[in-house]
Amino acid sequence: MILDYLNPANYDWKLILGGAGLIILKLIGIIIAFLIVKSIGKRVIQNSFKKVVDRENISLGRARTLESLSLNIFSYVLIFIFVVMIFEIFDYDATALLASAGVIGLAIGFGAQGLVSDIVTGFFLLLEKQIDVNDYVTTAGFSGIVEAVGLRTTQIRGFDGTLHFVPNRQISSLSNHSRGNMRALVDIGISYDDNIDQAIEVLQSTCDRIAAEDDSIKEGPNVIGVQSLGSSDVVIRVIAKTENMGQWAIERKLRKALKEALDSNGIEIPFPHQVYIEKKSE
Amino acid sequence: MILDYLNPANYDWKLILGGAGLIILKLIGIIIAFLIVKSIGKRVIQNSFKKVVDRENISLGRARTLESLSLNIFSYVLIFIFVVMIFEIFDYDATALLASAGVIGLAIGFGAQGLVSDIVTGFFLLLEKQIDVNDYVTTAGFSGIVEAVGLRTTQIRGFDGTLHFVPNRQISSLSNHSRGNMRALVDIGISYDDNIDQAIEVLQSTCDRIAAEDDSIKEGPNVIGVQSLGSSDVVIRVIAKTENMGQWAIERKLRKALKEALDSNGIEIPFPHQVYIEKKSE
Amino acid sequence: MILDYLNPANYDWKLILGGAGLIILKLIGIIIAFLIVKSIGKRVIQNSFKKVVDRENISLGRARTLESLSLNIFSYVLIFIFVVMIFEIFDYDATALLASAGVIGLAIGFGAQGLVSDIVTGFFLLLEKQIDVNDYVTTAGFSGIVEAVGLRTTQIRGFDGTLHFVPNRQISSLSNHSRGNMRALVDIGISYDDNIDQAIEVLQSTCDRIAAEDDSIKEGPNVIGVQSLGSSDVVIRVIAKTENMGQWAIERKLRKALKEALDSNGIEIPFPHQVYIEKKSE
Amino acid sequence: MILDYLNPANYDWKLILGGAGLIILKLIGIIIAFLIVKSIGKRVIQNSFKKVVDRENISLGRARTLESLSLNIFSYVLIFIFVVMIFEIFDYDATALLASAGVIGLAIGFGAQGLVSDIVTGFFLLLEKQIDVNDYVTTAGFSGIVEAVGLRTTQIRGFDGTLHFVPNRQISSLSNHSRGNMRALVDIGISYDDNIDQAIEVLQSTCDRIAAEDDSIKEGPNVIGVQSLGSSDVVIRVIAKTENMGQWAIERKLRKALKEALDSNGIEIPFPHQVYIEKKSE
Amino acid sequence: MILDYLNPANYDWKLILGGAGLIILKLIGIIIAFLIVKSIGKRVIQNSFKKVVDRENISLGRARTLESLSLNIFSYVLIFIFVVMIFEIFDYDATALLASAGVIGLAIGFGAQGLVSDIVTGFFLLLEKQIDVNDYVTTAGFSGIVEAVGLRTTQIRGFDGTLHFVPNRQISSLSNHSRGNMRALVDIGISYDDNIDQAIEVLQSTCDRIAAEDDSIKEGPNVIGVQSLGSSDVVIRVIAKTENMGQWAIERKLRKALKEALDSNGIEIPFPHQVYIEKKSE
Amino acid sequence: MILDYLNPANYDWKLILGGAGLIILKLIGIIIAFLIVKSIGKRVIQNSFKKVVDRENISLGRARTLESLSLNIFSYVLIFIFVVMIFEIFDYDATALLASAGVIGLAIGFGAQGLVSDIVTGFFLLLEKQIDVNDYVTTAGFSGIVEAVGLRTTQIRGFDGTLHFVPNRQISSLSNHSRGNMRALVDIGISYDDNIDQAIEVLQSTCDRIAAEDDSIKEGPNVIGVQSLGSSDVVIRVIAKTENMGQWAIERKLRKALKEALDSNGIEIPFPHQVYIEKKSE
Amino acid sequence: MILDYLNPANYDWKLILGGAGLIILKLIGIIIAFLIVKSIGKRVIQNSFKKVVDRENISLGRARTLESLSLNIFSYVLIFIFVVMIFEIFDYDATALLASAGVIGLAIGFGAQGLVSDIVTGFFLLLEKQIDVNDYVTTAGFSGIVEAVGLRTTQIRGFDGTLHFVPNRQISSLSNHSRGNMRALVDIGISYDDNIDQAIEVLQSTCDRIAAEDDSIKEGPNVIGVQSLGSSDVVIRVIAKTENMGQWAIERKLRKALKEALDSNGIEIPFPHQVYIEKKSE
Repeated sequence: MILDYLNPANYDWKLILGGAGLIILKLIGIIIAFLIVKSIGKRVIQNSFKKVVDRENISLGRARTLESLSLNIFSYVLIFIFVVMIFEIFDYDATALLASAGVIGLAIGFGAQGLVSDIVTGFFLLLEKQIDVNDYVTTAGFSGIVEAVGLRTTQIRGFDGTLHFVPNRQISSLSNHSRGNMRALVDIGISYDDNIDQAIEVLQSTCDRIAAEDDSIKEGPNVIGVQSLGSSDVVIRVIAKTENMGQWAIERKLRKALKEALDSNGIEIPFPHQVYIEKKSE
Repeated sequence: MILDYLNPANYDWKLILGGAGLIILKLIGIIIAFLIVKSIGKRVIQNSFKKVVDRENISLGRARTLESLSLNIFSYVLIFIFVVMIFEIFDYDATALLASAGVIGLAIGFGAQGLVSDIVTGFFLLLEKQIDVNDYVTTAGFSGIVEAVGLRTTQIRGFDGTLHFVPNRQISSLSNHSRGNMRALVDIGISYDDNIDQAIEVLQSTCDRIAAEDDSIKEGPNVIGVQSLGSSDVVIRVIAKTENMGQWAIERKLRKALKEALDSNGIEIPFPHQVYIEKKSE
Repeated sequence: MILDYLNPANYDWKLILGGAGLIILKLIGIIIAFLIVKSIGKRVIQNSFKKVVDRENISLGRARTLESLSLNIFSYVLIFIFVVMIFEIFDYDATALLASAGVIGLAIGFGAQGLVSDIVTGFFLLLEKQIDVNDYVTTAGFSGIVEAVGLRTTQIRGFDGTLHFVPNRQISSLSNHSRGNMRALVDIGISYDDNIDQAIEVLQSTCDRIAAEDDSIKEGPNVIGVQSLGSSDVVIRVIAKTENMGQWAIERKLRKALKEALDSNGIEIPFPHQVYIEKKSE
Repeated sequence: MILDYLNPANYDWKLILGGAGLIILKLIGIIIAFLIVKSIGKRVIQNSFKKVVDRENISLGRARTLESLSLNIFSYVLIFIFVVMIFEIFDYDATALLASAGVIGLAIGFGAQGLVSDIVTGFFLLLEKQIDVNDYVTTAGFSGIVEAVGLRTTQIRGFDGTLHFVPNRQISSLSNHSRGNMRALVDIGISYDDNIDQAIEVLQSTCDRIAAEDDSIKEGPNVIGVQSLGSSDVVIRVIAKTENMGQWAIERKLRKALKEALDSNGIEIPFPHQVYIEKKSE
Repeated sequence: MILDYLNPANYDWKLILGGAGLIILKLIGIIIAFLIVKSIGKRVIQNSFKKVVDRENISLGRARTLESLSLNIFSYVLIFIFVVMIFEIFDYDATALLASAGVIGLAIGFGAQGLVSDIVTGFFLLLEKQIDVNDYVTTAGFSGIVEAVGLRTTQIRGFDGTLHFVPNRQISSLSNHSRGNMRALVDIGISYDDNIDQAIEVLQSTCDRIAAEDDSIKEGPNVIGVQSLGSSDVVIRVIAKTENMGQWAIERKLRKALKEALDSNGIEIPFPHQVYIEKKSE
Repeated sequence: MILDYLNPANYDWKLILGGAGLIILKLIGIIIAFLIVKSIGKRVIQNSFKKVVDRENISLGRARTLESLSLNIFSYVLIFIFVVMIFEIFDYDATALLASAGVIGLAIGFGAQGLVSDIVTGFFLLLEKQIDVNDYVTTAGFSGIVEAVGLRTTQIRGFDGTLHFVPNRQISSLSNHSRGNMRALVDIGISYDDNIDQAIEVLQSTCDRIAAEDDSIKEGPNVIGVQSLGSSDVVIRVIAKTENMGQWAIERKLRKALKEALDSNGIEIPFPHQVYIEKKSE
Repeated sequence: MILDYLNPANYDWKLILGGAGLIILKLIGIIIAFLIVKSIGKRVIQNSFKKVVDRENISLGRARTLESLSLNIFSYVLIFIFVVMIFEIFDYDATALLASAGVIGLAIGFGAQGLVSDIVTGFFLLLEKQIDVNDYVTTAGFSGIVEAVGLRTTQIRGFDGTLHFVPNRQISSLSNHSRGNMRALVDIGISYDDNIDQAIEVLQSTCDRIAAEDDSIKEGPNVIGVQSLGSSDVVIRVIAKTENMGQWAIERKLRKALKEALDSNGIEIPFPHQVYIEKKSE
């Protein structure tokens, strides 16, 4: 009697097959829908990138990286939804699958949110051209030359030779020192007893001589005036615009030349001063 | 026997087609509803912007940017809801789609919340005219001239030539130094032995002379009195109002002129003082 | 055969129209319910504001702003619930709409929570009269005169002319310097060799003279005694109460007067002292 | 044919009215349940407060404020649940209402959690009597006299006249300086050459004299010994207990008296010392 | 016709009463289940506390407090679940109740999480005996004598008389200075010209004398050697173990005695030294 | 008529009992499933610990603690799921129970997450042998000897006698000073006028003598060269490796010996130098 | 009558067995699906690792560790979903299981997110070769030699012998000092009176001599010019590139050699200067 139920003839094949037909129809519908969504999505992504590349002058290699990343993420999401729907159709309650995914996803999400954050930031670092290999940048407390920009990590070579690995999410704001001319700035103190006008004249003529000699100077150097009245000296500021990365050499050159010019004109760069008032010991 | 069920004649076409009719009706209902919502929404957004532009004196270009952003977001949200409802109607359990979207959305949301935060802040930066290209601002620890204000990132050119990329979400509060006249402030110390009244008189007359000479001064400069009794000097404060961005030049000019005025009137700018009491070595 | 199903005569119009009747009844019920809720809600809000205005002495303009904000938010919430219920009735599974709204809402919520936080804080800033235009306040690291208080942003004009835009959520605690008389405080150091009683007498008599001369002084100034025994001087503290914003002028006036009074009574304001013990070089 | 369905006679009134009967029964059940819950809840809250007031010596006014707050919150929660259940009964799918409420609630919750946090903290500030108007407290970086304690904000008047508005949630820990006698502490340095025992004797006898003169001193002042061996002086510490808020006056009095006592006994309060070793210039 | 439906005879009383029977059965089941759970839970809690008290030597009063807290929380949770289940049985969709509770709970939870956190921390502070009334502790930036330990707040009396209210959640880590002997530490500098061995001998013999005199010293004091070579002196460190709270008195005693011992042995405690090289003025 | 329904004969006992049979079957299924899961889980946990203990050389006592903790947590989770499923079977909608648990769990979770965090960290502190009783560690801003390592709290005895209670979650990173030899480091400054080679020779020979005398030195001490050119002295660095906890004694010994060696070789440890240039008073 | 229902003959075996057949079919479907998913997933993971290993030059041992971790996690997730689905099929409402898992998961998730975060970071530390055993790194405030890199914790041996245990999540950014040549940098100050050109010449020739002698120098050392005009000296900077870890020895060597070279050429390394102006005591 029990074995009867293993006898296929006893099952309501009509209902089962009717359901099967419906399943097949649904399946076909889904597959078609997703093929359409996928090809449209792909084309939309590719076109957006083409437009952005044209408009923003992004190098082809960089655009490829970003495009392939976008396509990958798009595919993963689509496949995930596709799998869920297939399960649904075959009547294995997909909520089980989904809820599991949810619980696991949440658990990982809390721990791994840094990872997503890294990739999102990395994406925009590349897209907005904030950073290029060989740029001199300051970010997240590190300064140095960029060696590599990845989707998760950026590598910065410090000037002392250290290689800093910076997760992109740490790059909250970024200072790029390789985007245009830089300023060279020298503060030089003269004595309160010296004539300010004469000192400025001496300094300016030295500046002009150096400007003539050195091609890496783009503007100035100019003496802009009395920056502060220090406790022992009158501080005079000199600023110039130089080629990128040339600012330190120019500053060193200026410091030496200005010091020597003041020396040879008898203008004192004063040591700290103090007035002494003597009083008898009690 | 099995093949019977592939025979269309065996299906209950009435029920299926009746369902089809209902689906088509629902579909039409949804499409109409959304067309209405879309056109109303669009008009509402456009009108709000028109009003805001009129009332707030926002430049047309800026208003366009914000309006197109608002319309885009509105469309994306509408399309998302539309797609979800279509799926619902075709009886593919939309919860699968939605839950997937939820899981993925949450995962990304944790990582990418910074992005949304950037755009929201950027929207208000533009709408409230807190910032304009070429403004001199201080925000997020950076100071400089604004080069570009985007929805995600603001670019600030530091005075040393560095280009700072600041994600808008980092702009928690913003100090705009290009909104009106600026103050020039000079503190100058005189000796405890000098007569304060005489010193103030000398300084004020110099201030008046400079005010007459220089058009970028809007108010003052005025000697406002004894700011502090320092350890070695009596500090006198001079303040003026100048044209925007002219404050540093005026301060430099004032420092030089006031120092020379005190010199020529025999008033001492004192070095640090110390009283020495000698005691025999033990 | 298939076309039969497009023939209206074949549909169960009774069931459909019965459903339609139910829908219309439900619709009417909802509309009535919401009209009632809305008018009650409106009246409740208006009455609360009337009460608050009476009790708290809030200016009418400010109350209007807050009332209209409250009514707006109330309306938006009601309309949102209304739309959701309408959808429900027309049997478009509103969960789709709602879940979509939820996903989007959550995504935005994470990013835009700052915005809600701004408005909530702004609401209470206005309601509790913590801040008024032209108040001199310190908050979020900025000091200055309030130029505008908005629901999202507060504008503070720094004394150097900078305009600070502070999102309200940054205003965690707020120091208002424009709510009553202010204290003027001058610390003045006399020599260890001078007689403290005599010095206090000289300082107090000068204080009394100034109090008599200047109307902006509300209390004092009084010499309150030896504030500290410094390394080179005995510090005596003088405090006064002045009109709001008059404290700096009084302090400057006091500093000058007290210094001159000590000078003319032969009491020394000492420079830093040091005892020197000579020892032969090793 | 269509109009038939508007003919009431065609509806199954039996089913509808049976449902109506059920609804009315349910409604009555709910109303009764909530009236009971409300009156029980109210009595429980009132009794708890009565007990707490008796046990904790809370002033009646303060207890009233807290009780009415508790009753209000309890009522709002009850009404919210009541409304939701009514909707449920009338078969308007309450989930719509609830989900809406959830979405909105979450959105606001993220932004306004500070508000709830303020009220919870405010509640306990009042209940635990941590703070009273006119107390001198230090909290959240501010010091001053409490002017008002609200459920959301506490107002502290700084000693310089500034009024600080501190949201209660900022009051993480609170230092109340108005709960008992305060300590007056004076550190006084004597020369390394002086006899420590003699100095202590002089200081102690001065302390005793002042203790006899001044009623606001509750204990001491006592010389407790050599607090540190400074670079130029031996530091001797004197401490006393005074009436609340009297500590500063006593400290000032002590400083003056101890300095004069040391002077008149020939004990030196030394200036900074330095040993000089001369060496020929290279 | 309509009134017919109010005629009880027309209702299917069999079904209704059958349902009523089921409800009553369920109700009885639930009540029994909960009575069992409650009595088991209560016994489990009481037994755990008995065990813990035996093992951990917790004072009876403290154990009572913790036990009654645990029982209270257990009861509230049980009652809440009980109420929800009762509602469920009476077919008022309990999800409404629950969802409401959820929304409200979440809203409050965000704001009031500090409160739960306070209680959890307070529970363990008491259970683990980290803190006792009259202990001298340092925590959350405050130091002083514990006056009260509550479930929400701990009161610490600072040495200057201030009463600090510290919410327990602020007590992340806690330093208890009243759990055993304390160290007294004195650093004393001698001249570079003095013989180190002789100085150590003098200091050690003084230490031994004091150790003999004072009972509150438990170990030492011992001269442990040259702690550092300062810029002007050779620093020698002396350490001792004293009775709890006796460390400061011993340190003061040691400082005085060691200074006098060095004086009477002709060993110098040097002032800061400096080598002077004279150079002609330029 | 009504009483009929209390007559058992009127109930459909077949259906009820059939349901009962199903319930019993389900119940048996669940109990079997859980007995299997429990015994498998237990064995898996025990085996993992056996493996870990073998591989990682964990002391037996420590492994027991961790194993029993793991088994406890495993049991609690299983029991919770078991109870939920039982309820489900008896048709009391377990969602009520679960949702209640969820609401309460969330509420507590927010407040008590620190507790779970403590236990997780404590588990790994023990498992990874980062810390042992009597180790000298630095963590969470505290330094001292570990007195006890619990699952929630670690007790560290500071060198001044204070007992620090550190919740494990505060132990983000941990520095263990009791895992191997330690470095002794002495920096000693010589005069710019002295011969560096000679000084190094003198220092090295002293180091060699001490190395020969003291067994707690494991390596060196060696003079490694000129560490810096200070403003007044040439700093020479000496480093050694010593037995654990012996580093301070060796450093003190080295300081004394090196100072005496330099003295006896006529090499100066210089005081701060300053060059004086005299100028006439103005 | 009741016993009848325990009589198997009375049950509808057809329905039960039909259900059983369906369950078996579903079960087979699930098992097949998961076997496929598992083997595909495994192959995908293995292939990805093969590719990554080839492309990124990761050592085989490290790749094995990462691969086995990935396979483990993949298996656990699969088994969890498998178990949930089995339960579902056997009609024990899996939501109970799931919801329980959810509640527990959330509770633990909040506390243990640090653990997941540790593993994720550890995974990438290994994959991206940021760190190797024996590297000299700086991260999370610790510097030292890496002793072990685990999935949860990294062990760093500080130079003073301390072993630092750093949870990987603390390693936000990482500075690796063992990736290439390092810079040696020496700043040396000469007198304002000395000739800068001559000093540079002397320093450069010394540098050249050392470069010739020492193989660990890779570049330079070179005198790059006047780095700053100090208050008492003109600071000249010398930089070199050395073998990794050789920078400190080279710096020490350079400091000694440069100091001696300046000495033997009569160029002064100046002590701090001060100008003294004498004034009569008042």
